[in-house]
Amino acid sequence: MSEAVNKEMTNREDDYSKWYNNLVVKADLAEQSAVRGCMVIKPYGYAIWEKMHEQLDRMFKATGHQNAYFPLFIPKSFLSREAEHVEGFAKECAVVTHHRLKVSPDGKGVVVDPDARLEEELIVRPTSETIIWNTYKNWIKSWRDLPILCNQWANVVRWEMRTRLFLRTAEFLWQEGHTAHATREEAVEEAQRMVAVYAEFARKYMAMPVVVGHKSETERFAGALDTYSIEAMMQDGKALQAGTSHFLGQNFAKAFDVQYANREGKLDYVWATSWGVSTRLMGALIMSHSDNNGLVLPPALAPIQVVMVPIFKTDAEHDAIVARMEQIKKSMEAEGLSVKIDDRDNLRPGFKFAEWELKGVPVRVVIGPRDLESGNVELARRDTSTKESLPQEGLALRVKALMDEIQANLYNKALKFRDDNVFKVDTWEEFKEKIEKGGFLLCHWDGTAETEEKIKEETKATIRCIPIDSCVCEEEGRCIYTGKPSHRRVIFARAY
Amino acid sequence: MSEAVNKEMTNREDDYSKWYNNLVVKADLAEQSAVRGCMVIKPYGYAIWEKMHEQLDRMFKATGHQNAYFPLFIPKSFLSREAEHVEGFAKECAVVTHHRLKVSPDGKGVVVDPDARLEEELIVRPTSETIIWNTYKNWIKSWRDLPILCNQWANVVRWEMRTRLFLRTAEFLWQEGHTAHATREEAVEEAQRMVAVYAEFARKYMAMPVVVGHKSETERFAGALDTYSIEAMMQDGKALQAGTSHFLGQNFAKAFDVQYANREGKLDYVWATSWGVSTRLMGALIMSHSDNNGLVLPPALAPIQVVMVPIFKTDAEHDAIVARMEQIKKSMEAEGLSVKIDDRDNLRPGFKFAEWELKGVPVRVVIGPRDLESGNVELARRDTSTKESLPQEGLALRVKALMDEIQANLYNKALKFRDDNVFKVDTWEEFKEKIEKGGFLLCHWDGTAETEEKIKEETKATIRCIPIDSCVCEEEGRCIYTGKPSHRRVIFARAY
Repeated sequence: MSEAVNKEMTNREDDYSKWYNNLVVKADLAEQSAVRGCMVIKPYGYAIWEKMHEQLDRMFKATGHQNAYFPLFIPKSFLSREAEHVEGFAKECAVVTHHRLKVSPDGKGVVVDPDARLEEELIVRPTSETIIWNTYKNWIKSWRDLPILCNQWANVVRWEMRTRLFLRTAEFLWQEGHTAHATREEAVEEAQRMVAVYAEFARKYMAMPVVVGHKSETERFAGALDTYSIEAMMQDGKALQAGTSHFLGQNFAKAFDVQYANREGKLDYVWATSWGVSTRLMGALIMSHSDNNGLVLPPALAPIQVVMVPIFKTDAEHDAIVARMEQIKKSMEAEGLSVKIDDRDNLRPGFKFAEWELKGVPVRVVIGPRDLESGNVELARRDTSTKESLPQEGLALRVKALMDEIQANLYNKALKFRDDNVFKVDTWEEFKEKIEKGGFLLCHWDGTAETEEKIKEETKATIRCIPIDSCVCEEEGRCIYTGKPSHRRVIFARAY
Repeated sequence: MSEAVNKEMTNREDDYSKWYNNLVVKADLAEQSAVRGCMVIKPYGYAIWEKMHEQLDRMFKATGHQNAYFPLFIPKSFLSREAEHVEGFAKECAVVTHHRLKVSPDGKGVVVDPDARLEEELIVRPTSETIIWNTYKNWIKSWRDLPILCNQWANVVRWEMRTRLFLRTAEFLWQEGHTAHATREEAVEEAQRMVAVYAEFARKYMAMPVVVGHKSETERFAGALDTYSIEAMMQDGKALQAGTSHFLGQNFAKAFDVQYANREGKLDYVWATSWGVSTRLMGALIMSHSDNNGLVLPPALAPIQVVMVPIFKTDAEHDAIVARMEQIKKSMEAEGLSVKIDDRDNLRPGFKFAEWELKGVPVRVVIGPRDLESGNVELARRDTSTKESLPQEGLALRVKALMDEIQANLYNKALKFRDDNVFKVDTWEEFKEKIEKGGFLLCHWDGTAETEEKIKEETKATIRCIPIDSCVCEEEGRCIYTGKPSHRRVIFARAY
């Protein structure tokens, strides 16, 4: 590491939270907008989100889903139909009450036209179960209309008091799948299939290890009978819920009276699931791999996988080096790599190195006059901060293979960190001590919401999930807090 | 054409407007939602929009643009900053006044919490110039930061009194490009480049001929110095504005105080463009090609390009035919075609034929027991309603070539219709007579907003554009209405 841009970065070890905020802005990923709690996703940040979007969309389609689009607005009365749902979502939301502005009486600016009040207020969707199930009512008559496997890519709004870029914003982008099934079994299977898709996406593309599990009743989605989630561990030991998939039972079908005639011609309520991931994944990605020099991107999601920086003194050197780079770029692009030549004439190489490190580009290739002569390049890896000299001959294939190596290395590094920070804890004293240092605490719990609540009050730790893979938790023991008998360990952690 | 589903379709000749509404719903493209003026875009309709989105996105990126995302909400005061803009957009819009609901005093349902009134109302974006230029202010310091070439895919809301699916809805999906430039010339060039991209997209992918031109001052975007548009002719002879590109001058830069230091270090205001197309394109696509049997899709935008329908009596026949179809499907997919085998067991072939005609699938392939023996298929084209027998051997390549043929045929057919309905008109009597029958009337106009307004009042015809390609309009003449001298013809038409 040399000089420049990243100098002003906060150290991750000094103030993790500040380091994160700093990084998001400095790496040009996103910024606060003029609207409280709403972010602007900048082109570089959006390009990463686009890669996530494309890959997830492929996985949804491969599992039989289709995209559709439902209204931004939800009539206020819809929210009250499902009792728990209104509890969970109607509280903090954006309410549209009028449909017109008019010139203000003093002639300066505009004011809300009091004559344009809506008969029924509209809520900007915080999630779309209600409007979608009201629509599904007209789509479903018989078992032949099932299953319905829809997904929607959309913006949603939840009026958050304290916001952080990507992690918690009033408006965010997400996808929400909403499926309708003839049987309970099919719906449960779908909810499980989709949390597995999320886990695969997190592991394979984000290089982020996750635990798959059930949420406790307290932490469930408002209106669900069961919520599955993937839980990741950030570098400060805090947990981040990165995706959820809900088995909704017949709750929404009953609230919106959606019945179907089964093969025997009898009417029954339809079974539902919903599942979603959001731009919050951007926060998870950043906090899984990045360091004090900036962002570290897994190759599978990097908008630029290779940056090439020429080093030269004379115009003749410049032209010869850039011409060679163009050739190498072409051969790399033929291998499916995305490559950028940073040919800016007003910046020194050291500044460029620092900038691309800050932006997390996986591989940097430098060619100077001597390299041109010897037929080599200097290649630097973002993940290990190592450099080596390599022949230009065959570089494209070498770098293509290196992408897989980096992807695997990032995953393994994050996995090791995660595993080093999962602890079996059996006493309350140890719990209180350990939780201060972060990590996932595998503990016995008596299964009651009261105990969960008390532990949260005393330590700010919540049950992240009741794991169904990733760890052997089925065993007899006693609740960490009450000492009552328990049949399995659950994961406690402080969380984003 | 056989039987079934399309029987209930309204005839295009009897009632074009009803035919359109009918078709959109019956072909499963979209439907009205529970929210006034907002539509649900159904999976089949959304799949077509996705194809448009993908292709346009490729074209935007190929011309150097990047995607980003800006807030859904715009502070009310922002709208007043640009004087003409507020005139054009602040009138009918969705106004967010509160950020919380609470349980109603009677315990039933929820009501707006009067304590949660926003300090400043937020407008759901009708277009994003204001919030984006407020953001660009922080991105632009010097000429080195220019140009900024951003695009956003988003939903917008304009509170329309009378709505029609795709053509005019309160909420719609669109893309909006917003660019910032150092010079007037560059900005004008960009606005022209993007209207040319739209024209190429319309012609090449939608198979829809368009005229490119300037809007008259009256019809310009609120806040623009010049608006370019592409204008298409629907089958009823009415015009449809399918995309616009605006040269905004320095209006928004001045409204939001966005200045840059030029190469000489002097401050100057930044030059702007914006450009957009929306789900309205879906309406244009439908009304360009479809007929009384339903939708007709150009292969370039068809989610399913080939549908295969087996005809059989016995289970053995069924299995043998479907197995053969699977092979053919694979060979077609290898050629990049998207193929569906309609193997539903509860519907007769005639019903399936009608359904896929209704949905506009370009090619239908039928295999019955005799075809299986003879090694042939029956192939039907949606665009010409013709059938032929073809060998299974080499079918994939034949069909691939046929796609280009169909695409070209649809364009030529639409072009012929358009050209047959463009008329040079030189007297006011002829104008009033012709306009009743539809079509584009090429007329001289004295260039004043007054005359434009009077013609509109008397005939409902508006100036669609002042063409810059597609027709020779530069010639001396006299205004159709006032007889004053004119140097060029413009296009008048009734419009959607």
